[in-house]
Amino acid sequence: MIKVGIIGASGYAGAELIRYLLAHPEVEITYLASSTFEGKPISEAFPSFLGQNLPLCESYNLDTAAKKADFFFQAQGNGAGMKIVPELLARGKKIIDVPADFRLKDVETYKKYYGMEHIAIDALAEAVYGISELHPKEIAAARIVANPGCYATGAILALAPLVGSDFVCVQSMIVDSKSGVSGAGRSKLSAAGLFCEVNEGCKAYDVATHRHTPEIEQELCVISGKDVRLNFTPHLAPMNRGILTTAYASAAQGKTVPTSAEMIARYREFYARQPFVMVLDEGKQPCTKDVFGTNFCHIGLVSDSRTNRVIVTCAIDNMGKGAAGQAIQNMNLMCGFDQAAGLMSPAIYP
Amino acid sequence: MIKVGIIGASGYAGAELIRYLLAHPEVEITYLASSTFEGKPISEAFPSFLGQNLPLCESYNLDTAAKKADFFFQAQGNGAGMKIVPELLARGKKIIDVPADFRLKDVETYKKYYGMEHIAIDALAEAVYGISELHPKEIAAARIVANPGCYATGAILALAPLVGSDFVCVQSMIVDSKSGVSGAGRSKLSAAGLFCEVNEGCKAYDVATHRHTPEIEQELCVISGKDVRLNFTPHLAPMNRGILTTAYASAAQGKTVPTSAEMIARYREFYARQPFVMVLDEGKQPCTKDVFGTNFCHIGLVSDSRTNRVIVTCAIDNMGKGAAGQAIQNMNLMCGFDQAAGLMSPAIYP
Amino acid sequence: MIKVGIIGASGYAGAELIRYLLAHPEVEITYLASSTFEGKPISEAFPSFLGQNLPLCESYNLDTAAKKADFFFQAQGNGAGMKIVPELLARGKKIIDVPADFRLKDVETYKKYYGMEHIAIDALAEAVYGISELHPKEIAAARIVANPGCYATGAILALAPLVGSDFVCVQSMIVDSKSGVSGAGRSKLSAAGLFCEVNEGCKAYDVATHRHTPEIEQELCVISGKDVRLNFTPHLAPMNRGILTTAYASAAQGKTVPTSAEMIARYREFYARQPFVMVLDEGKQPCTKDVFGTNFCHIGLVSDSRTNRVIVTCAIDNMGKGAAGQAIQNMNLMCGFDQAAGLMSPAIYP
Amino acid sequence: MIKVGIIGASGYAGAELIRYLLAHPEVEITYLASSTFEGKPISEAFPSFLGQNLPLCESYNLDTAAKKADFFFQAQGNGAGMKIVPELLARGKKIIDVPADFRLKDVETYKKYYGMEHIAIDALAEAVYGISELHPKEIAAARIVANPGCYATGAILALAPLVGSDFVCVQSMIVDSKSGVSGAGRSKLSAAGLFCEVNEGCKAYDVATHRHTPEIEQELCVISGKDVRLNFTPHLAPMNRGILTTAYASAAQGKTVPTSAEMIARYREFYARQPFVMVLDEGKQPCTKDVFGTNFCHIGLVSDSRTNRVIVTCAIDNMGKGAAGQAIQNMNLMCGFDQAAGLMSPAIYP
Repeated sequence: MIKVGIIGASGYAGAELIRYLLAHPEVEITYLASSTFEGKPISEAFPSFLGQNLPLCESYNLDTAAKKADFFFQAQGNGAGMKIVPELLARGKKIIDVPADFRLKDVETYKKYYGMEHIAIDALAEAVYGISELHPKEIAAARIVANPGCYATGAILALAPLVGSDFVCVQSMIVDSKSGVSGAGRSKLSAAGLFCEVNEGCKAYDVATHRHTPEIEQELCVISGKDVRLNFTPHLAPMNRGILTTAYASAAQGKTVPTSAEMIARYREFYARQPFVMVLDEGKQPCTKDVFGTNFCHIGLVSDSRTNRVIVTCAIDNMGKGAAGQAIQNMNLMCGFDQAAGLMSPAIYP
Repeated sequence: MIKVGIIGASGYAGAELIRYLLAHPEVEITYLASSTFEGKPISEAFPSFLGQNLPLCESYNLDTAAKKADFFFQAQGNGAGMKIVPELLARGKKIIDVPADFRLKDVETYKKYYGMEHIAIDALAEAVYGISELHPKEIAAARIVANPGCYATGAILALAPLVGSDFVCVQSMIVDSKSGVSGAGRSKLSAAGLFCEVNEGCKAYDVATHRHTPEIEQELCVISGKDVRLNFTPHLAPMNRGILTTAYASAAQGKTVPTSAEMIARYREFYARQPFVMVLDEGKQPCTKDVFGTNFCHIGLVSDSRTNRVIVTCAIDNMGKGAAGQAIQNMNLMCGFDQAAGLMSPAIYP
Repeated sequence: MIKVGIIGASGYAGAELIRYLLAHPEVEITYLASSTFEGKPISEAFPSFLGQNLPLCESYNLDTAAKKADFFFQAQGNGAGMKIVPELLARGKKIIDVPADFRLKDVETYKKYYGMEHIAIDALAEAVYGISELHPKEIAAARIVANPGCYATGAILALAPLVGSDFVCVQSMIVDSKSGVSGAGRSKLSAAGLFCEVNEGCKAYDVATHRHTPEIEQELCVISGKDVRLNFTPHLAPMNRGILTTAYASAAQGKTVPTSAEMIARYREFYARQPFVMVLDEGKQPCTKDVFGTNFCHIGLVSDSRTNRVIVTCAIDNMGKGAAGQAIQNMNLMCGFDQAAGLMSPAIYP
Repeated sequence: MIKVGIIGASGYAGAELIRYLLAHPEVEITYLASSTFEGKPISEAFPSFLGQNLPLCESYNLDTAAKKADFFFQAQGNGAGMKIVPELLARGKKIIDVPADFRLKDVETYKKYYGMEHIAIDALAEAVYGISELHPKEIAAARIVANPGCYATGAILALAPLVGSDFVCVQSMIVDSKSGVSGAGRSKLSAAGLFCEVNEGCKAYDVATHRHTPEIEQELCVISGKDVRLNFTPHLAPMNRGILTTAYASAAQGKTVPTSAEMIARYREFYARQPFVMVLDEGKQPCTKDVFGTNFCHIGLVSDSRTNRVIVTCAIDNMGKGAAGQAIQNMNLMCGFDQAAGLMSPAIYP
């Protein structure tokens, strides 16, 4: 049993971490930090936790945190991790930073996309980018893991088996993602998040400028050894959870894309022995609903000989594999647990 | 570890039972019966089960069933249990019948509301009506438990602490329930169930004639020792899951209803030591979302001195406490497990 | 052609008024007041108005308003009408106040429920409560009409034909209403209004204390000449629009409720020649979806001989018949137009 | 006043046609054909039509139809138009065929994608493909217009101003569309259309094989004079209505894409004097909600210098501009009415 603390417990990611951790056989939640709900039970923020045995919320304090827990999830907004992570590392703790502070290796890119100077350069250098399936050994050895962005997770899992191939043109790739709205969080209120405005509304946003673009490119460059530059377009759809990523890649000059069956075989080999990535049979398409509330990732593959392109579709839960689920999976790797511990529950359906 | 079989595995209740049982520490799912998906993995019916270790579906056969499992959930439609339950009992098995066949003790009422002659009179006489909180000892001793209806569960939990009191007029009670649409199931298709027709639609149905009415009255009569006759009105709201029950009761002649605080104290005493029934603080109202996907029941209480009435509100998940969750809780009681085993996960939120 | 101004144009009620008025044959929108969008086209607030010929928004100013329009809809929050209505009346204008300032005749009740001293006593005395079907002559003669609350409209239309009868006990009435969330408006942001929190959530609020209670009672007292005191419970359901009201009334001492068919005949006679109130055939139930975006009201009637109660169900659009639609209908009456002018479009379906 | 008949009145497209036509100043609905609702009022199919003055439904019969109306909308499924259109043309009637029978000029392609032999070759040759903005003169002169597919309408309006340019590579184009589920219609029931299964689900379907692909390509080839071959991927999102099309095009070899501002200027010039196509200001993105229930089309433009691509987003209502709205617009052109007659109502919001 390890003692785990969650900093930023009263946000959506915090709630989802608590939910997963309550079902985890190797973990005890011993510390919940939330300034908004200081001194109150977390069920004040989320009545769904009524009847659970959980500590009261308190305002984050390094000494208390360090005394009460050994492993931390930092789940506050961007910018918070830069301050907290180094001091927790110095106390010998392990940390997963759920937001973006430790994802981008290039501080200039970070500054450009997030509008802040990075103030934790050493920790950033040490941090491992935590797509669990792609870097399990590095994650297992890490003290600080940068939990990937939700869109980035979907895009990277969809394209990782493809970008290293010789038949695809990495400059041709387009990633078109459709997300539920929980990614916007609970605390930043705007009319755009109201039920009345989201319902029946589908729209793109941050076209050509979204922050997850450099994250996707950085990771696909690492995997492929090529200079990947792509278009990423996020969309909001009227649902709470889920990201459906549709990725397009054209054949490289003079090449022909493999058949759908060959693509499926390729992906299944790539993700063999991965408990959470399911490559669907030919003719099947993933649906966000099938991974709702889980750490699973469903991938569909179609090869279009007419246009010489492949179309990869990938469904994850933005709060699960796209946030809290993957964070738990990374914790499992970092702590030497079975990587699937506490994460195998199937989606609630319907 | 007990070996469990689900008959009717490819319906919504079947899927929900599988989901709960996969997380149950004392159970192994060894038998799944579905004629529609015979010979196929259950993930063909519900891709959410991809990656889980589950037996293939087969058509129900008594000998095979009896060989493969010791405890059964009968989750096919009304009328199926009357045929299957007696033969499984004869093989020494324990069974929970999820639909309505064993709920109504009076066969004439059964015939009137369900349009069928009852053909399993002995099993009916033996069956225990399974509101887990109200009849734990009888359930623990039972071989056959009739799992209560979803609406009935909400109404009974809302009113059970009230009907035995001397200050309330049991003839004054009105139960107005709002349900998600998953209760209609997956197999009976009609235009009324289409997303396009449900979305933005709220309406009552079966007003004054719904089948759960005699079930609610039968149980409240047993609890109170009084002749309860009430109005029950079910409504559909555009959501997958959840039942919000709003129950009204007037003070008995010459009596005054207790204050909200007194009502809350009364309910908390009634449900003390019950892990799933949460009586909310004064001023709080239960929300179906807070119990989504769970076996929990949240109850709110308001006393209105202006009209001398009490208003009880009660939120459950119709697929959880209203069906599969309560069925598992009953199984726990019948098998001598902790009644909360496998059921403590909080709601997914948001 | 009359010149119409809308004060509070950038709220939901404002938007709905504009939508109706654009389709009105006798009206020209000449003035839109919104401090938030001063100097901007209303399409900045609602891109749905792109391509429409509408004046720019301006901050409310009495002189400008009086110069530009002859008929006004005051659609800002509670409290605004008390200030604006008297000065517009003094300039010889006609006004419909959409919020609550002129609904309650008793200023103490107003103060109790709205927390404000009433500062426009003369205008309040003059104001006509605007359920179009019940007070057409008074409305036609009025300079200031108080547009009824959305819940109140549904409850009053459901019960008006009943409360004057001798067979019903007016002290027994219970009104249980289910509403979409647009009634909360656009400007008051809270986490409770977020899509993520509303979706899959059904709950009651303001139980026994909601502001529309005195409004319903005041009007039903006027109609019936009896002292009506009832329970009104509002609920939120995950939809944008619509109110489904379920009202219960018991037979008076020694009386028997009429049959459903008799009730239907009674209601049809009551609402004969009313273009917007549709009393459904026996066995049919109204659905909010069928009146979505309209000024229609659908009513269903069931008589329960078992409990000697009648159950009346009533569907309206809270933004239509419950707000902007009824306001236009009242304007039609006040201006001598056909009361259905501009309002006959059926619901968008699906 | 022209006399209009709708064949297939009880489907969603039929209902939407009726709704628009009821608001049309030059039209009288004199004939409604529906075999399912023969002899009944259309309000049996859609209670939203209660209170409207409409003829009873009857089974389609050529003689009766020809006697009762002069202009027809054929809104039954694919294959029906091939039979009905020639005989109505022979009676001197004008017809708009809403489904697919007259869209594809190549009968082999029709057979390949729709699985039927075409049996109305002459009418097909005569039929005009009805994107109102692109072929107003041909439509005005036509007796038979093929109403475009919903996805095709969005894709064509999004790309028409682009494909003729010299800076874009037409072979690079990708069209990724997100649709509400009303396009599946009301009569073909499947579990996949249930509220419970659609809610929280986003997925692609018919990837690389959807029937609207040849329709989009045919039209873009006509407009551009180039051989257009593209990828079209339809997706379902949990909403009733709306299609959000996201289209990607790369610069032609050696070219640079214009800036966003230049693209916007180009599109505004292309759609100048078109009442329904709104090209949004720089930085704004279209949302399906803003065109809900209307014939409007909102277009957003972003130029990405980093990847040398343009991203065009386009929102329409699949039942409006994507079906019934455009059909009315085409009728207006065919009948010499103002092309916007009866169609200018803004979206219901929220």
